[in-house]
Amino acid sequence: MSEYQHPYKDVTFVLRELVGFDQLCEQAGLDEVNGELAEAILEEAGKFGGEVLAPLNQVGDREGATLGEQGVQETAGFADAYQAFVEGGWPTLTFPEAFGGQALPNVLGTAVNEVWQSANLAYSLCPLLTQGATEAILHHASDELKAIWLPKMVSGEWTGTMNLTEPGAGSDLAAITTKAVPEGDHYLITGQKIFITWGDHQMTPNVVHLVLARLPDAPAGVKGISLFIVPKFLLDEQGEPSVRNDAHCVSLEHKLGIHASPTCVMSFGENGGAVGYLVGEPHQGLAYMFTMMNHARQAVGLQGLGISERSYQQAVTYARERIQGTRRDGSKIAIIEFPDVRRMLMQMRASIEAMRGLALLASAEADKAKSAADAEQARRSFDRVELFTPIVKGWLTEMSQEVTYLGTQVHGGMGFIEETGSAQHYRDARILTIYEGTTGIQALDLVGRKILRNQGAAVNALLDEIEECSRELAATPELSVLNRHLVKALDEARQAVGWLLDKGAQSADAPGAVSVPFMMLMGYLCGAWVSCRMAQRATALIAAGEGDTEFLQAKVTTARFFCEHLLPRVQGLLETVVEGSESVMALPESQF
Amino acid sequence: MSEYQHPYKDVTFVLRELVGFDQLCEQAGLDEVNGELAEAILEEAGKFGGEVLAPLNQVGDREGATLGEQGVQETAGFADAYQAFVEGGWPTLTFPEAFGGQALPNVLGTAVNEVWQSANLAYSLCPLLTQGATEAILHHASDELKAIWLPKMVSGEWTGTMNLTEPGAGSDLAAITTKAVPEGDHYLITGQKIFITWGDHQMTPNVVHLVLARLPDAPAGVKGISLFIVPKFLLDEQGEPSVRNDAHCVSLEHKLGIHASPTCVMSFGENGGAVGYLVGEPHQGLAYMFTMMNHARQAVGLQGLGISERSYQQAVTYARERIQGTRRDGSKIAIIEFPDVRRMLMQMRASIEAMRGLALLASAEADKAKSAADAEQARRSFDRVELFTPIVKGWLTEMSQEVTYLGTQVHGGMGFIEETGSAQHYRDARILTIYEGTTGIQALDLVGRKILRNQGAAVNALLDEIEECSRELAATPELSVLNRHLVKALDEARQAVGWLLDKGAQSADAPGAVSVPFMMLMGYLCGAWVSCRMAQRATALIAAGEGDTEFLQAKVTTARFFCEHLLPRVQGLLETVVEGSESVMALPESQF
Repeated sequence: MSEYQHPYKDVTFVLRELVGFDQLCEQAGLDEVNGELAEAILEEAGKFGGEVLAPLNQVGDREGATLGEQGVQETAGFADAYQAFVEGGWPTLTFPEAFGGQALPNVLGTAVNEVWQSANLAYSLCPLLTQGATEAILHHASDELKAIWLPKMVSGEWTGTMNLTEPGAGSDLAAITTKAVPEGDHYLITGQKIFITWGDHQMTPNVVHLVLARLPDAPAGVKGISLFIVPKFLLDEQGEPSVRNDAHCVSLEHKLGIHASPTCVMSFGENGGAVGYLVGEPHQGLAYMFTMMNHARQAVGLQGLGISERSYQQAVTYARERIQGTRRDGSKIAIIEFPDVRRMLMQMRASIEAMRGLALLASAEADKAKSAADAEQARRSFDRVELFTPIVKGWLTEMSQEVTYLGTQVHGGMGFIEETGSAQHYRDARILTIYEGTTGIQALDLVGRKILRNQGAAVNALLDEIEECSRELAATPELSVLNRHLVKALDEARQAVGWLLDKGAQSADAPGAVSVPFMMLMGYLCGAWVSCRMAQRATALIAAGEGDTEFLQAKVTTARFFCEHLLPRVQGLLETVVEGSESVMALPESQF
Repeated sequence: MSEYQHPYKDVTFVLRELVGFDQLCEQAGLDEVNGELAEAILEEAGKFGGEVLAPLNQVGDREGATLGEQGVQETAGFADAYQAFVEGGWPTLTFPEAFGGQALPNVLGTAVNEVWQSANLAYSLCPLLTQGATEAILHHASDELKAIWLPKMVSGEWTGTMNLTEPGAGSDLAAITTKAVPEGDHYLITGQKIFITWGDHQMTPNVVHLVLARLPDAPAGVKGISLFIVPKFLLDEQGEPSVRNDAHCVSLEHKLGIHASPTCVMSFGENGGAVGYLVGEPHQGLAYMFTMMNHARQAVGLQGLGISERSYQQAVTYARERIQGTRRDGSKIAIIEFPDVRRMLMQMRASIEAMRGLALLASAEADKAKSAADAEQARRSFDRVELFTPIVKGWLTEMSQEVTYLGTQVHGGMGFIEETGSAQHYRDARILTIYEGTTGIQALDLVGRKILRNQGAAVNALLDEIEECSRELAATPELSVLNRHLVKALDEARQAVGWLLDKGAQSADAPGAVSVPFMMLMGYLCGAWVSCRMAQRATALIAAGEGDTEFLQAKVTTARFFCEHLLPRVQGLLETVVEGSESVMALPESQF
């Protein structure tokens, strides 16, 4: 397995040239934060990821987490790494200073999270889930609960989990049956939750579970679900973990990938009831979860980027080292010289750069929404976050399947051998299009809630912005090839949106039947758009004689590759969207 | 894990209506063979696959093969299954009667092989490799060697292996260093071979290795490689295995999938030299291997079909059983009713039917080449086999990645859990685009040897035949939608071929840089063509009031789905072929 090297140059280029990081900090009134600080933080994060987390990636896969008498035992070495992670202050970056955070922009937190996800995807899930649980408490719990739980969750001294799914309630949370019965100042929780990521481990003295459950008087369906804090250990009067709560991991799943991330079946209240504390108002649990959703989904999209980058680096290393054939002069030929190997590496690279650009752009919109000058601007940024979220989650994770596939393909036969390490990325990536809402769920969200519900206003605003970009590109003759492809795809996207707005009102099944092809179409368009914008900035910098010309020229070449090898998929997807919905439902169920 | 049910109805439809099995038998003068016999054989094969091989698939994955003091120990249960396989006469189907075979058509053997590959891919590799080794001996060994080795290989009493790859010699066989030194009537072989499928096991009293090695006077490079029979046990005077030969499995690979198929590092001659017998002439080893190539590559393409079918069946079963949500009347909703789940199942199904049609059509061309009335017709069929081979291998195996991906996706979170079984198909499928020549190698073969070398004559003949088909389709108004898509894609394919013939002469790198997109383009076109032909036959049968109308109507619907959801990819691929070759090689190696 190759080492992990943080792609510092590309990440900082995106922050500086695409996101406009300095301007974003200025707008947010963050006087002490700027690109220089961000770059210093990223450099440290890159080191930590490469030196501490990445070396644990393969052993985590091989040995995984195990369940013993004391609960879940994480892979050897993870506890020390986590300790160093906390000591480095990494969990605190984006949280408010009041709870020990550093109040850095969301987009910087995202750029840093890419490091953890590339270096060790299974590990990164632990801070990721903790971040989600912390956000939920931060936004919805009482001040009293915040004061008790947040400081140690922000610091990472305690980790957090999200307990939603039950055996009979996956995407359909209406079916949740876990119960919460009031008892004094708290509740007693009983029920079973499945697929609980990092539901238990020995790395920290406590684990804070957020659990969806029903109160006795709860209405049926999704409107009767409440959210509870259920710690592994109850706290004593000093706020330190003391008595073991009645919340246990009772088994671990045997999974295709991310073996070092324990996926727990959690049992609450087997011995009388687990003590839990109500977060916010009763029956608002699902709404609270939904406010976390954009962040969580974008974070999983980012995992698609992270695992793709890792797979790419390993493939490049192999392609440089692997000799196949000899020239007439006796010198050896490395496979990176073969056109088809080069094509695969370029496709991985072009995908990754587009993914990174889109992920950080989407993430920055959340910052912009927060620091907007007026309500109108805040609304615009929020709409954009909402629109981007299913694309970032759906498209990036789907792309990561293809990228990690190519990563193993570059290795030939060695790619199929587990010791090589490439297959692990391929297996690890497989969960990404499933959890936190499958690709199908993302596509339905995009089509239904994000497009049809506002009659296309948000998507048309985006398409207008892309058109604006293409007008600017037209002023740069070197980019005319890119722009020709972009203009064509933009027109195709407008046709697809038009069809949706037209058909969506008429048929119950039609939009759902082609929502995934539509979502992919939007993903390719957005990927091309950010790639073109980066190529445009690179071209401008070259013209101004600034920066590393070879690197900047590579950005242009990679964008061109995207436009010629990935963007052309849009036309076929358009045809499928416009013509393909009927045949999806035409076959009687009995004929399958 | 779901059970395996042989898709008898679809397979026999393809044989009857697309391949024209009866006519093919007649032309070959096989008086006793006809569709009825083929169907009886397929029914038995389906039973054997479903009842004996399929139940061993998951345990084979979980327990795999192990290496002990006695050599490789296959998964428990495999030896009994193999014994029953031999007793059923399954290995003998297509071999000549002189050696105990049944001399049945190649295409029937292919249809039967699909069963083994669906039921248990890892198991099926053992008879597959044996078949290849048997063919090599049949076509190239002396009568004396044939008499000694063939009867028990045809019957399956002994299995066979192919020993090509060495640590420094993968796709580049010129680098082979294994040595063969003459000693009396035989040779002593020394060297190491890797990636040897089913290189050892305890299921049969002997294993017959075919080994590529160099004679002392051999010229350098690929022209100095000879082929040897190196048995695990030398034979006594009665032709029975007696003395252990100096050929041993020294380690097993730890692989992503096909765990029950032992992938051996084979060491020859660690104790003085393994006894081997020269097959045919010295220095002709590679040429002999090449004559096996069409068969072996098409067989791996067929594995893509087999694993896809298995994954599809499991996904359908799950989609019917998995409940998500409740209607207002209280009845439960199975996820098969959801449009996006339906879309995934349809895409799997449409891919599979096209793959099956193409695999059997390609396989039948080998029969036609053998029984051709004249040299011209034989030539035409042989050219078609040559042209189809890289498409069947390359496209079917690439499609199997997407199909098995969708198979897990239909399962949602359960797809990521190994016990479910779907992930195994996904892992098992991953080897298919790698071994027996990667997708890149197939695409180069298609573009270089099969198209540029004959100035496009073979591919243009195929495109003309597709055009002929589209003219016939035009006569059936019900199929006008399908035909519109087919005509468009055909035109796009002609443009792509035109570009290749034009650019291929001008640039060394250009065709190689876009050969995979070109190969995929041809695959989709061929898939649509066979789907349309099947739809046309189905429509004719419906009109004539023959056959099962629902099944026939489903063939039409599935073909339509193919034309609307998969065939539209052709236009994007054309754009990539025509415009995308430069950007593949444009980035300096240092920038990766």
